[in-house]
Amino acid sequence: MATQGVTPRSEDYSRWYTDVVQQADLADYAPVRGCMIIKPYGYELWEGIKSALDRRFKATGHRNAYFPLFIPMSFIEKEAEHVEGFKPELAIVTHGGGSELEEPLVVRPTSETLFGEAYARWIQSYRDLPMLINQWANVVRWEMRPRLFLRTTEFLWQEGHTAHATREEAVEETLKILDIYAEVSEQICAVPVIKGRKSPQEKFAGADDTYTIESMMGNAWALQGATSHFLGQNFARAFNIQFLDEKNELQLVWTTSWGMTTRTVGAVVMAHGDDKGLRLPPAIAPIQVVIVPIFKTDDEKTAVFAFAGEVKAQLEAADIRVHFDQREGLSPGFRFNDWEMRGVPVRLEIGPRDVAGKSVMACRRDVPGKEAKKSLAFDGLTPAIQTLLADVQKSMLETARTFRDEHLHEAATYDDLKRIVEDGWALIYHCGTRECEDKIKEETKASSRCYPLDLNPEWQPKGKVCAVCGKPAFGRAYFARAY
Amino acid sequence: MATQGVTPRSEDYSRWYTDVVQQADLADYAPVRGCMIIKPYGYELWEGIKSALDRRFKATGHRNAYFPLFIPMSFIEKEAEHVEGFKPELAIVTHGGGSELEEPLVVRPTSETLFGEAYARWIQSYRDLPMLINQWANVVRWEMRPRLFLRTTEFLWQEGHTAHATREEAVEETLKILDIYAEVSEQICAVPVIKGRKSPQEKFAGADDTYTIESMMGNAWALQGATSHFLGQNFARAFNIQFLDEKNELQLVWTTSWGMTTRTVGAVVMAHGDDKGLRLPPAIAPIQVVIVPIFKTDDEKTAVFAFAGEVKAQLEAADIRVHFDQREGLSPGFRFNDWEMRGVPVRLEIGPRDVAGKSVMACRRDVPGKEAKKSLAFDGLTPAIQTLLADVQKSMLETARTFRDEHLHEAATYDDLKRIVEDGWALIYHCGTRECEDKIKEETKASSRCYPLDLNPEWQPKGKVCAVCGKPAFGRAYFARAY
Repeated sequence: MATQGVTPRSEDYSRWYTDVVQQADLADYAPVRGCMIIKPYGYELWEGIKSALDRRFKATGHRNAYFPLFIPMSFIEKEAEHVEGFKPELAIVTHGGGSELEEPLVVRPTSETLFGEAYARWIQSYRDLPMLINQWANVVRWEMRPRLFLRTTEFLWQEGHTAHATREEAVEETLKILDIYAEVSEQICAVPVIKGRKSPQEKFAGADDTYTIESMMGNAWALQGATSHFLGQNFARAFNIQFLDEKNELQLVWTTSWGMTTRTVGAVVMAHGDDKGLRLPPAIAPIQVVIVPIFKTDDEKTAVFAFAGEVKAQLEAADIRVHFDQREGLSPGFRFNDWEMRGVPVRLEIGPRDVAGKSVMACRRDVPGKEAKKSLAFDGLTPAIQTLLADVQKSMLETARTFRDEHLHEAATYDDLKRIVEDGWALIYHCGTRECEDKIKEETKASSRCYPLDLNPEWQPKGKVCAVCGKPAFGRAYFARAY
Repeated sequence: MATQGVTPRSEDYSRWYTDVVQQADLADYAPVRGCMIIKPYGYELWEGIKSALDRRFKATGHRNAYFPLFIPMSFIEKEAEHVEGFKPELAIVTHGGGSELEEPLVVRPTSETLFGEAYARWIQSYRDLPMLINQWANVVRWEMRPRLFLRTTEFLWQEGHTAHATREEAVEETLKILDIYAEVSEQICAVPVIKGRKSPQEKFAGADDTYTIESMMGNAWALQGATSHFLGQNFARAFNIQFLDEKNELQLVWTTSWGMTTRTVGAVVMAHGDDKGLRLPPAIAPIQVVIVPIFKTDDEKTAVFAFAGEVKAQLEAADIRVHFDQREGLSPGFRFNDWEMRGVPVRLEIGPRDVAGKSVMACRRDVPGKEAKKSLAFDGLTPAIQTLLADVQKSMLETARTFRDEHLHEAATYDDLKRIVEDGWALIYHCGTRECEDKIKEETKASSRCYPLDLNPEWQPKGKVCAVCGKPAFGRAYFARAY
């Protein structure tokens, strides 16, 4: 309930972020370093994202299941790149039920290996394919530089794991899921994305290819929103996942995996927040409309509360998520700040004059100043609010997209890149090699974000060279500082 | 897809249970002993239970949050009874991020301690109360005698944790949640319950009182369905959870905790299953109606499939969960067995004669023989199916209740009890002491299930003595063999 005001974004963006997350009651630190408590308001945002994803996964034929938290260490070691990538981040259980375990157990950092072992048993014939399973779970990756939502030792996510008869089908699945991630990010979270392919170095440990959605935060840094991996036959080989095809021949399956996490909540904060706090897109706002009563006398209070109750009932009947702030002893100014901090998209102010005129004063959170306010009649309030919420949703995406597009620039040379990444993303022909990426990272703090799909009609384009080192180009990549 | 037939219940009930769980595709064993993979069909059952609970928790003012998986060992040790109860079951993380940890971390067996620590920080004033938070999570309790769904080292559950200003409010909350558990068990899972209080020895480690719902399985054994704990001020003291009351005086809060788990899926299997496999109540059946086509020639197939498609569309439009079995090369008999194994409440058989007569043959899973079958016209099929599903739901609860009531008996003496628990539950005046319970357990394999609330108008009733040992009675308890 304490609205203390946050550090201005321009002063210290990192501090601003942490202030908003805590003061808007999204999350709190946990006693174990690197872990977080997701508070109800933050969890409700995650529930919104989760249900948007879950509906789309089910509509495309995926089913939910639940695989265990613990993985035998020997499993993780079966795929060489996989263990190399994850070993430094593992949490290890060595004791259980009062005794030391014969084989240490890994707390899952991701579950390709468990799915691999099960799929090898479950899949016999082409009739068992495709196998399309998703799970909602917690995972643990030891985090040295934790940050609420964005990087935590434990986080929540969904992880999809699919197996297919052909390479083409698996690639198609990988990209279909990437489209779902992009749609949820843009249409639900109002966070525009660039869909792209990760550089060979940045791909998932064990994947042939990793696809990503990359978004721009309010300080022009990048954030990886979700990834979808084409795993080729790497895990099929490691776990011997075979099937009899229609010609009765034994074949290895092709697999994919893909995940979106609670860091998306952090992305919503960073993409939309301002110095007053959160700004939430209506599609996932736990409270879409808050009613703030304004009164001086007891008589005024009685009249205002009665009318506010009617307004609430009208909106609730249309499934609008509305909250009537009936807390005692708080000034209207305090309440305004408090709900602005929490990012509620629309505030309805109701005072004695509104009661008399059978109207409410609506104020949208996403735009500043006088433009934000508009008087709405009680009659027909529901459609007016629905239109307003749809406007806010659309306008938040547009605002974020405009901001992003203003910070995307083409770089013809490495010098261009150096200048651009100070306050934006640089699009540059790049070789995709580790040495060259490392050099850029060291000298500019920018990393390779992705090779946008729509800007790379072909890979390794003929005659194009890396603008930094002169080797043959892998394609055009965005470089940016990133979370 | 393999329907091999299960071990008959009468021959080996345990083996029957495991056969059904695996052959109905509910779950599979995981590589780590004691852990399980919940397969999509089993997880969909859990999703049904979960959404029924979640809706009720939210309707009674609770909000979801997410607390961390890892608990510092020192936290668990803060409440003396709590650590004593849980220590033998803990899984311990000793290494993280490549190094040995300074303080080992416990993988949560339950989260009273983490909530306690947070509530002590979050609660300042009576205005912050009640604090009503629930979380959906996985927990780990090392299991020496694992059994799919019923006892697994890792399981899924919800755990509610609330804090209140007064003892009365906390007790009221404990019982309100017990009612929600009873309602979901009976109305959704069609599993009747007895609401009762656990004996002093059987209560949760750290609780003043534990309330339970106890259900009878198909072999007349008992299963604890869910528990709701009145924690008194035990955790408030251990974690110093204090608030300023309306008179500005510092008080300790009163807390509760409560949980229902994935073992409920096992209860549904055991309460309803028969030698043909699962029988699912329509309220949580992932598939409520399955359409099985019957045809010989290609022409018949074309006509049957076209009509079946219309039937499916009609039912889907009314949100009935319907599946059309279009698998190739399977006989009707195989399909019947297969869907019976999976417990689908209603099967619609559609053959050429049904197409000609614009009707379907409906067959309910819950009753055997000819009574199960009924021809239904295509016109008005939706309301007929809705009525049928409601009948099945109601009738399954009634059947289970009748079976249970036939196996509940009063025991005036210990000899009565010994005889009764061979095939039922014995209601007996009991002292509630550990020594007496242990003796009964050793001699009869039966344990104290609960002191039913409606049969115990008062506790420690005057003049009543334990029918086993002669000490003053705590009340009337059910004793039974139990999972």
